[in-house]
Amino acid sequence: MTVGIGVTGATGRMGREVVAAVADHEDCEVAFAVNRDPDGERVDGVELEPAARFDALLAEREPDAVIDFTGPESAADYARACAEIGVAFVTGTTGFGDDGLAALEDAGDEVPVLHAPNFARGVQALVNVVGQAVRNLPGYDVELVETHHNGKRDAPSGTANRLLDEIEANGEFSGRTHGREGEAPREDGEIGVHALRAGNITGEHEVVLAGNDEEVRLTHRAEDRGVFAAGAVDAAVWIAGRKAGNYNFADVIDE
Amino acid sequence: MTVGIGVTGATGRMGREVVAAVADHEDCEVAFAVNRDPDGERVDGVELEPAARFDALLAEREPDAVIDFTGPESAADYARACAEIGVAFVTGTTGFGDDGLAALEDAGDEVPVLHAPNFARGVQALVNVVGQAVRNLPGYDVELVETHHNGKRDAPSGTANRLLDEIEANGEFSGRTHGREGEAPREDGEIGVHALRAGNITGEHEVVLAGNDEEVRLTHRAEDRGVFAAGAVDAAVWIAGRKAGNYNFADVIDE
Amino acid sequence: MTVGIGVTGATGRMGREVVAAVADHEDCEVAFAVNRDPDGERVDGVELEPAARFDALLAEREPDAVIDFTGPESAADYARACAEIGVAFVTGTTGFGDDGLAALEDAGDEVPVLHAPNFARGVQALVNVVGQAVRNLPGYDVELVETHHNGKRDAPSGTANRLLDEIEANGEFSGRTHGREGEAPREDGEIGVHALRAGNITGEHEVVLAGNDEEVRLTHRAEDRGVFAAGAVDAAVWIAGRKAGNYNFADVIDE
Amino acid sequence: MTVGIGVTGATGRMGREVVAAVADHEDCEVAFAVNRDPDGERVDGVELEPAARFDALLAEREPDAVIDFTGPESAADYARACAEIGVAFVTGTTGFGDDGLAALEDAGDEVPVLHAPNFARGVQALVNVVGQAVRNLPGYDVELVETHHNGKRDAPSGTANRLLDEIEANGEFSGRTHGREGEAPREDGEIGVHALRAGNITGEHEVVLAGNDEEVRLTHRAEDRGVFAAGAVDAAVWIAGRKAGNYNFADVIDE
Repeated sequence: MTVGIGVTGATGRMGREVVAAVADHEDCEVAFAVNRDPDGERVDGVELEPAARFDALLAEREPDAVIDFTGPESAADYARACAEIGVAFVTGTTGFGDDGLAALEDAGDEVPVLHAPNFARGVQALVNVVGQAVRNLPGYDVELVETHHNGKRDAPSGTANRLLDEIEANGEFSGRTHGREGEAPREDGEIGVHALRAGNITGEHEVVLAGNDEEVRLTHRAEDRGVFAAGAVDAAVWIAGRKAGNYNFADVIDE
Repeated sequence: MTVGIGVTGATGRMGREVVAAVADHEDCEVAFAVNRDPDGERVDGVELEPAARFDALLAEREPDAVIDFTGPESAADYARACAEIGVAFVTGTTGFGDDGLAALEDAGDEVPVLHAPNFARGVQALVNVVGQAVRNLPGYDVELVETHHNGKRDAPSGTANRLLDEIEANGEFSGRTHGREGEAPREDGEIGVHALRAGNITGEHEVVLAGNDEEVRLTHRAEDRGVFAAGAVDAAVWIAGRKAGNYNFADVIDE
Repeated sequence: MTVGIGVTGATGRMGREVVAAVADHEDCEVAFAVNRDPDGERVDGVELEPAARFDALLAEREPDAVIDFTGPESAADYARACAEIGVAFVTGTTGFGDDGLAALEDAGDEVPVLHAPNFARGVQALVNVVGQAVRNLPGYDVELVETHHNGKRDAPSGTANRLLDEIEANGEFSGRTHGREGEAPREDGEIGVHALRAGNITGEHEVVLAGNDEEVRLTHRAEDRGVFAAGAVDAAVWIAGRKAGNYNFADVIDE
Repeated sequence: MTVGIGVTGATGRMGREVVAAVADHEDCEVAFAVNRDPDGERVDGVELEPAARFDALLAEREPDAVIDFTGPESAADYARACAEIGVAFVTGTTGFGDDGLAALEDAGDEVPVLHAPNFARGVQALVNVVGQAVRNLPGYDVELVETHHNGKRDAPSGTANRLLDEIEANGEFSGRTHGREGEAPREDGEIGVHALRAGNITGEHEVVLAGNDEEVRLTHRAEDRGVFAAGAVDAAVWIAGRKAGNYNFADVIDE
């Protein structure tokens, strides 16, 4: 069986990678790829369609799933459209507000929806080991450092937030502090969060646990954005044909 | 209750730290401290006794436990003496041959014996997370790097071997290779092991898992030898009064 | 010739190390050691004197140099007293305001004064190579990460500021930003500065230069506070008997 | 002026990157691209020619320079052909024996030849700062760690060898040791060399200097092979039209 995939934001950094990753995956094909203003452009040989035709394309091309890396507003719109027509929706978009998250939640009542801040298998492994290390080293100070390319506008990254949630779920912490300057003593139980932006670094996340004359550092580094696109395609293949619901990438990895 | 502790090799690097750590621990006191040729020397205010009087000191001072960081031969002798008199034995000595390991095993029939290559809580946490990461990332290449001060004579370290055992217990690997030079392609499933020796670095262990355009690095770093001595004293307090048997440091941490 | 050294703040973390480092140095001896309220206390066998007697001790004991790791206000007072009596002054105190810096400058008119945020030889080497790397990689983004124990109250560290000055002296930069949170795009030419505080990490400084699909990282790590104390004693031996002036640690290293 | 470039080994990992980098460079165009058995294949839209026609293509297409990333034997052959016809030759091939190096040397008598193990600007910066750090930290222990993808067959890398030469040129060292196992004490002045192979890591080189309770780490990391191809194209543009001679990448950077 070939899984047909619709791709949004196909001229964005991640959109291009997704189109290429679908082509590389032996069980998939691109059902369509859209961007705001295609003007005859091709990505990896695929002719783009205008985003305004997204709903029509769902009906005409009948994809098994849509993969979306756009912005929070357009992602919410795409999720609603998929829910209406009955197409599975996979999104790696970050920065959703409460409305956007509610839209994803609602879409999950109708179709399978998978939302993940990061589709790297190693990131899921990092989340797992960070939880365990925090449990094994109670009372140790925890700091998080994340490094991304100089064009990333928001901080901390979605993956950093996911790691912070995992840290807080596994120990006693009092809050997060973002950078320190001047008279800035460390409060008991605070988690320091540090966002580096430099060059074209794909993405690195490091959790530091220190106490008792020792430290443990747990780090993930993406070599190439391709790792995220390949993971998103794996997720789309996994989710296509499942029952409605809200899934996350850990569900894909754990199988 | 105060736990009385006998210390062997008290003028060695670790022996000195153990004497200091016993003094710092509120529930412990030094029952005696020996070295080969004391000649009136004191460590942290404690007057040393000759190692030749070890058996006599066990009888006279009735310690609750002995803590040993010496060499494999003398450690085996001390274990036998403790087993005979009925004193718990904690050792961080590394480099035991089969005979030495058998001596420890035999002593465990008579008294509680705890043998650990490393008494840092963070090292145990590292062992735990390494096992989990290997299970979460099947097929990823694994390499191990350990760094110690320039006076360390054996390679890899005891802790590195423990990590390697854990790695192999959690995945499919074909063997270990120590350094690479010349035409040296990586064999499928081999684990590369690399021993750095430089300056007075206390001890660092790093496990690298890489594949699929991403990598995970799990690292432990000891700031100071004090972390090992404090852990050994924790182990001695924990083991004192238990029933005979062979224990390891994970038993202490998991409680 | 034996160099006699007066030590201030002798019960502080660094003061204790300095007393020990003087004892370890074959050409030095402790002339006196003061703290605010000695109350009969000894450090490394040396009986402490009250800080209120500092001026009198300079006259009575005639040290060749004073080594100071205290706070900005008391360090300025000690510098003035040394200038008046004619004793060389070495300080590793950080956090001086304009008044304090002026006091050091003035003291340098009368006696040799050496002020350094860090007495590790490797830190000076790091400053040197950071300057060179910035010149070799024009237009690359620069970020700085410094990590210290959880009791350090100010950020960034004195050494970080020295590195930042060196970076700015060797390239075109627009400013420093301390941490990033929320919508926080990187400005062209800004230097990101990140202060981690955790456990009892002695001190680590890392400069990241990234651009053009590559990155260079230049890192210094202190294993133990002893490295700073030993460097301060080296500086005191070097400065004793020189002519009046304001010196820095690079002068000591470059000889 | 447009610089015409001939590309060898155009279906290899690096050859593909070079074809793409030439297309990205506004002052360059691909004059021809060869591989052993093209069979109608295209790389980035360029139709490949058979390597057997290399000499004929030099004459027909009159490129300004050839860029070569192949193997030592074919690279020597290509160098000889370029020298004969009078075309500048840039090669990033590694693993040359004495014969191959002599062939490059000889070609430099006739045409400009540039041979570099690595075309990343940051690697040249690393070489520079490593030399300086070794001079600033006399007597410190030095170790080198290099990490590459699991398909790399030789160890250590060409860049590692270049770093080792620089280290030895700037201090007193007794030799190189490749990995340590068993009873393997560090000899005074030896440089430990460690080759990690894992996943698809593009390339990382780290030099560690440690002594005196401190350590300095100097690291370069390539994000993507594109950095090498872009540097090779820069070198080809720089070298085209120069007088005959043997050049290296530092000459390009220093201008």
